[in-house]
Amino acid sequence: RHGQAELSNQVGAATGLAYTSVGGDTLQIEVSLSAGKGKLQLTGKLGDVMKESAQTALSYVRSNAESLGIATDFHEKYDIHIHVPEGAVPKDGPSAGITITTALVSALTGRPVKREVGMTGEVTLRGRVLPIGGLKEKTLSAHRAGIDTIIIPKDNVPDMDDIPESIREELTFHPVSQVEEVLAIALEESNYAN
Amino acid sequence: RHGQAELSNQVGAATGLAYTSVGGDTLQIEVSLSAGKGKLQLTGKLGDVMKESAQTALSYVRSNAESLGIATDFHEKYDIHIHVPEGAVPKDGPSAGITITTALVSALTGRPVKREVGMTGEVTLRGRVLPIGGLKEKTLSAHRAGIDTIIIPKDNVPDMDDIPESIREELTFHPVSQVEEVLAIALEESNYAN
Amino acid sequence: RHGQAELSNQVGAATGLAYTSVGGDTLQIEVSLSAGKGKLQLTGKLGDVMKESAQTALSYVRSNAESLGIATDFHEKYDIHIHVPEGAVPKDGPSAGITITTALVSALTGRPVKREVGMTGEVTLRGRVLPIGGLKEKTLSAHRAGIDTIIIPKDNVPDMDDIPESIREELTFHPVSQVEEVLAIALEESNYAN
Amino acid sequence: RHGQAELSNQVGAATGLAYTSVGGDTLQIEVSLSAGKGKLQLTGKLGDVMKESAQTALSYVRSNAESLGIATDFHEKYDIHIHVPEGAVPKDGPSAGITITTALVSALTGRPVKREVGMTGEVTLRGRVLPIGGLKEKTLSAHRAGIDTIIIPKDNVPDMDDIPESIREELTFHPVSQVEEVLAIALEESNYAN
Amino acid sequence: RHGQAELSNQVGAATGLAYTSVGGDTLQIEVSLSAGKGKLQLTGKLGDVMKESAQTALSYVRSNAESLGIATDFHEKYDIHIHVPEGAVPKDGPSAGITITTALVSALTGRPVKREVGMTGEVTLRGRVLPIGGLKEKTLSAHRAGIDTIIIPKDNVPDMDDIPESIREELTFHPVSQVEEVLAIALEESNYAN
Amino acid sequence: RHGQAELSNQVGAATGLAYTSVGGDTLQIEVSLSAGKGKLQLTGKLGDVMKESAQTALSYVRSNAESLGIATDFHEKYDIHIHVPEGAVPKDGPSAGITITTALVSALTGRPVKREVGMTGEVTLRGRVLPIGGLKEKTLSAHRAGIDTIIIPKDNVPDMDDIPESIREELTFHPVSQVEEVLAIALEESNYAN
Ligand SMILES: [Ca+2]
Ligand SMILES: [Ca+2]
Ligand SMILES: [Ca+2]
Ligand SMILES: [Ca+2]
Ligand SMILES: [Ca+2]
Ligand SMILES: [Ca+2]
Ligand SMILES: [Ca+2]
Ligand SMILES: [Ca+2]
Ligand SMILES: [Ca+2]
Ligand SMILES: [Ca+2]
Ligand SMILES: [Ca+2]
Ligand SMILES: [Ca+2]
Repeated sequence: RHGQAELSNQVGAATGLAYTSVGGDTLQIEVSLSAGKGKLQLTGKLGDVMKESAQTALSYVRSNAESLGIATDFHEKYDIHIHVPEGAVPKDGPSAGITITTALVSALTGRPVKREVGMTGEVTLRGRVLPIGGLKEKTLSAHRAGIDTIIIPKDNVPDMDDIPESIREELTFHPVSQVEEVLAIALEESNYAN
Repeated sequence: RHGQAELSNQVGAATGLAYTSVGGDTLQIEVSLSAGKGKLQLTGKLGDVMKESAQTALSYVRSNAESLGIATDFHEKYDIHIHVPEGAVPKDGPSAGITITTALVSALTGRPVKREVGMTGEVTLRGRVLPIGGLKEKTLSAHRAGIDTIIIPKDNVPDMDDIPESIREELTFHPVSQVEEVLAIALEESNYAN
Repeated sequence: RHGQAELSNQVGAATGLAYTSVGGDTLQIEVSLSAGKGKLQLTGKLGDVMKESAQTALSYVRSNAESLGIATDFHEKYDIHIHVPEGAVPKDGPSAGITITTALVSALTGRPVKREVGMTGEVTLRGRVLPIGGLKEKTLSAHRAGIDTIIIPKDNVPDMDDIPESIREELTFHPVSQVEEVLAIALEESNYAN
Repeated sequence: RHGQAELSNQVGAATGLAYTSVGGDTLQIEVSLSAGKGKLQLTGKLGDVMKESAQTALSYVRSNAESLGIATDFHEKYDIHIHVPEGAVPKDGPSAGITITTALVSALTGRPVKREVGMTGEVTLRGRVLPIGGLKEKTLSAHRAGIDTIIIPKDNVPDMDDIPESIREELTFHPVSQVEEVLAIALEESNYAN
Repeated sequence: RHGQAELSNQVGAATGLAYTSVGGDTLQIEVSLSAGKGKLQLTGKLGDVMKESAQTALSYVRSNAESLGIATDFHEKYDIHIHVPEGAVPKDGPSAGITITTALVSALTGRPVKREVGMTGEVTLRGRVLPIGGLKEKTLSAHRAGIDTIIIPKDNVPDMDDIPESIREELTFHPVSQVEEVLAIALEESNYAN
Repeated sequence: RHGQAELSNQVGAATGLAYTSVGGDTLQIEVSLSAGKGKLQLTGKLGDVMKESAQTALSYVRSNAESLGIATDFHEKYDIHIHVPEGAVPKDGPSAGITITTALVSALTGRPVKREVGMTGEVTLRGRVLPIGGLKEKTLSAHRAGIDTIIIPKDNVPDMDDIPESIREELTFHPVSQVEEVLAIALEESNYAN
């Protein structure tokens, strides 16, 4: 059932770690592209902060398209839809920023996201990764869902002390300060040169 | 009177199962196409979650147009109107996702929806079918309306225990995990090759 | 004074039956066309359900233009304004659906609406006519206004028992289940072949 | 000071009679045209009903442009601004409908509005003039402002009994049922053939 | 510091007199033009009435462009931004109408606004100047800020009695009834023929 | 960790000083450009006053593009996104005006912002710098974050008395009255002639 890690690597979908009043959870970020004119659609009962986070992720990708191996005119050729399933559950906050960026780059490059990777971190326009809250709860939930590789903001390293050692030992943590590092860890190699 | 199954197979209309505070109900999802420029219109006193569900269904269809046998440029040629009759009754939630997808694909391919089929399930951008609530009440209402084939999310199979055995035996259940399975069950074969 | 039936057959105007907290009433639906680009304007202090009803009526007409004898590209050539006079009186609900459809088809075909006809019924995207409330009050009000032919949804036939027999005998009722029947009853024959 | 009749005939401005909780008042409807693309701007702290009334007046003019002696493509060539001065005073209601129509036709034809004329009446899409409230208070206020010719809806004729005879005798009343009659009374003859 | 008159004549900026619950104040109206397509931007925490006042001022300028010596197609070539500094202070009301008109005409003609002039008055679409409130407080504040020439609506002349004689004697008042008079007083002569 | 000065000079990012109910803080203003059509996107949970401040900064840059060494048609070629990280923290007020202007000019000219500079000040359409509140708290926070050069509005000079002398001596203050002065202080020299 859902709340579990993906069964295979996926293009255009990445796993984020969420933190709500009732504990940690995992969530999927799905991105679809359709022939279009650059319209961005955001669904899944997202709050304003999460919508702005998605817009920031998209602008990061647009202004860094060339170095990411993406056609610089993609914004004129596709409509982009970002959806976060379980459409009746409200979601908010900036901490899915790097997950959204990863799903976007995956969809636009065709590089699959490794299924065993989960991640959490705010992203800025320049690709900096900012710290988030609830690392302990997020990690426990990711562990329960079968995730074994977790990308976290470098500024959250001190919070790793709060995670029970038995869990921590079963997981691989990647602290990062730039979203380029996230992409290098989470995306499969491209099969062909860009 | 209404609250009854359709009398014949229809193009562009599918039967969903709804669940409200006063019990289960069936609802029709109607789709009409007009020469246009890709405008999506949603009516029938739909809440925000249901509107996002329809947008998600449409994006699934757009980004999978080719494999669904639909012209990939349909979005530039038609305006699409999705209406849920009984316009004064508020409706919400994500559980009509697969019904909306079915009605859309029917309208766009011309393949009729089998009149004896009812369905319930959230759909994601990638076509995954997620579990819903109120399966018992929905099933009882569908049975009363003359539906005899019911498509449900695979993750709702355990909830089938709650349906009285006498009713359950008169119905055929199809548990599914991808919306492609829904379309194979609910739509008539196309009369001509795509 | 107003609250009376029209004095002559009109193009682009039809008489609906309304039901408010203070009893039944008749209302005029007016449609005007101007050279334009497909903009739909809705005025007359209409609630959201009534606005959606008008949008549904328009989509029905657009997607059935050919069989209605209307140029299929009308939507690109005209702006359409639907107004319900007595602009300070709030109006809502789906029961003017068939009246709006009739006024639209009249305006687009030039066929006048018979002045002695009043009507009430929700319309769906596929042209089905759904039942409405307040049939008794609506009928009494229409009778007072000089209407003698009333189109009602087939599912409302049982409610005709509630109308005093003395009134009922002075009126002709047309129960219908599809809006095509409404148009056949309410519109004058076209003077020329389509 | 304001609250007085205009000193000369004006193009694009007409005098309406208003009725508020503190009594009757006169108001000016001003219309300006600028080279543009059909944008309608409405200012003067107007309520929704009054805005819809202005949209209805404009649609009447657009769909009757030819018979009004107005170029049928004016809507593509001009932006239209309708303003009601004393911008801090809230105004609402449909009773300025015929005044707005008059000011619009004056601006679009160049025919001046006779300065001694005041008017009140709701207008419909088809140009019918519907009755209004507060005739007595409106008339007294118009009289104080120096207006001597008042156009009223035919259905308000019975309300003329409420106006003190001394005032009534100093005024000329024109009861009308169609806005074409309003234009014939309020506008100066065109100086040149259309 | 601010709250003082400008040190030199400025193009595209004019000084208005404001009146708030805590007394009179002066405010600058700033106008900037950029190559564009006729977009109007209004900033400075302006209330709806003040925004409508700016739109009315702009329409006055557009429809009188020729007689004001402004290219009649300016609206297609420039985006116009009107800003009222001290962006955190809410501002509202129609009394900056003539100040906005003056700043607009200055920006569009290049004629500087005389730095010693302050002004207050509502403007209508036809350029009439309507009376305002708080003349005494506005005048005292303008005097404190070093303004010595004040343009006021003709209908506010009786309110000049309320201004202490010692102040009144140090100021020059220009009562006006049309905005053309305002422009003649406040703007420097153009250096070149239009 | 964040709350610290940048480690290197950056293009398109500048450090502002903020003042909230819980004391002073520093914030980064990030600007990204993408090939586009002049759309302005503002994110970071910004209040209306801060959004208007960004619009004012952009209009200043647009109408002074030539003298700033920026192509005058940049607005037609780029979409501009201004983001203020820590997306969940509400931010408002006009005092980031000069910081936004600096980040914009940096992004559009390619001139890096000196990393040791922090700044605070409202900007007007004409580039005037207006005084702000909370100078003491802002300065203490900037000092803690490693900033050693602070640009302040000239009208805030008297407020420097409130800053403890020990801190004041470690900082260099630049009082300014025009935003051109800000740019001269904060931006590195361009490497090539404009
Ligand atoms: Ca979940
Ligand atoms: Ca810790
Ligand atoms: Ca029902
Ligand atoms: Ca169970
Ligand atoms: Ca009525
Ligand atoms: Ca009955
Ligand atoms: Ca008045
Ligand atoms: Ca009477
Ligand atoms: Ca001030
Ligand atoms: Ca006085
Ligand atoms: Ca901070
Ligand atoms: Ca001090």
